Amino acid sequence: MSAPEKGFAPRQSIEQVEEGDELAPKFDANGLLPVVTTDHASGELLMHGYMTAEALRRTIETGEAHYWSRSRQCLWHKGATSGFVQHVEEIYVDDDQDAIWLRVRVDGGASCHVGYRSCFYRRVPIGETVSVSPVKLLFAETERVFDPKTVYGDAPNPTQL
Amino acid sequence: MSAPEKGFAPRQSIEQVEEGDELAPKFDANGLLPVVTTDHASGELLMHGYMTAEALRRTIETGEAHYWSRSRQCLWHKGATSGFVQHVEEIYVDDDQDAIWLRVRVDGGASCHVGYRSCFYRRVPIGETVSVSPVKLLFAETERVFDPKTVYGDAPNPTQL
Repeated sequence: MSAPEKGFAPRQSIEQVEEGDELAPKFDANGLLPVVTTDHASGELLMHGYMTAEALRRTIETGEAHYWSRSRQCLWHKGATSGFVQHVEEIYVDDDQDAIWLRVRVDGGASCHVGYRSCFYRRVPIGETVSVSPVKLLFAETERVFDPKTVYGDAPNPTQL
Repeated sequence: MSAPEKGFAPRQSIEQVEEGDELAPKFDANGLLPVVTTDHASGELLMHGYMTAEALRRTIETGEAHYWSRSRQCLWHKGATSGFVQHVEEIYVDDDQDAIWLRVRVDGGASCHVGYRSCFYRRVPIGETVSVSPVKLLFAETERVFDPKTVYGDAPNPTQL
């Protein structure tokens, strides 16, 4: 049980966490909470990210999605560089309060730094025996919404091997 | 860069990971990958979970969702106890291949161990200044789909404080 933090209740019992009406989020060992972001209109999954306590508070207060950038190690107001701000229509928390769901509208319609609408632009086939060779992916989106070079210039790519 | 594993490509370059057609997932320090599971028809977020390499391979091969249970520390064929199997219609992987999206149909229509349809049954209000006292949650689902005591009996609750 961690110390109470501004806006959050201390986690005192399973009943309180699962059935109560107080926000009592559980951050992991790195102080992060996973966040699922879907398009409010289409239901499409746009991205999977992480929030610190401060990112969660700012998202609640401003109605614009804030994350923690694990690659840049900083608070990240989504869209501050690209202009593709995520306007949060609804926020939900899960049963044990260790995950957040944002339903958003996106200015410009893109949420992926590679230039696609969704980060999840490749599909994994189902129903085949997985052999030694790598599973082959299928592209679900084929056209980029924007050109990353134009939007981000020479900023380092956040993907880490 | 980790050693290649059955069905997965080694991660060799950002271009390969982001633009390539080979599954090259990045598991975290605990060997886990976060998974977002949505209802295929409604787009509703049902749950946020984790997969090991084996859980991902079994999900691909069987078309039924398999996860890693962090509370029970075991491979978890969702629905094996409750009967609420998740039939996977589509699997997607994200840009840097460190998150998975499952679009599923659920036998019986529930995915939450507390008895609700979705694990995300509480909404966080937006647009108010976060004060010292805890943010108050609003219940989005008010009726349970099933009674956890009937389905799980005396099995320990997976929620951890």
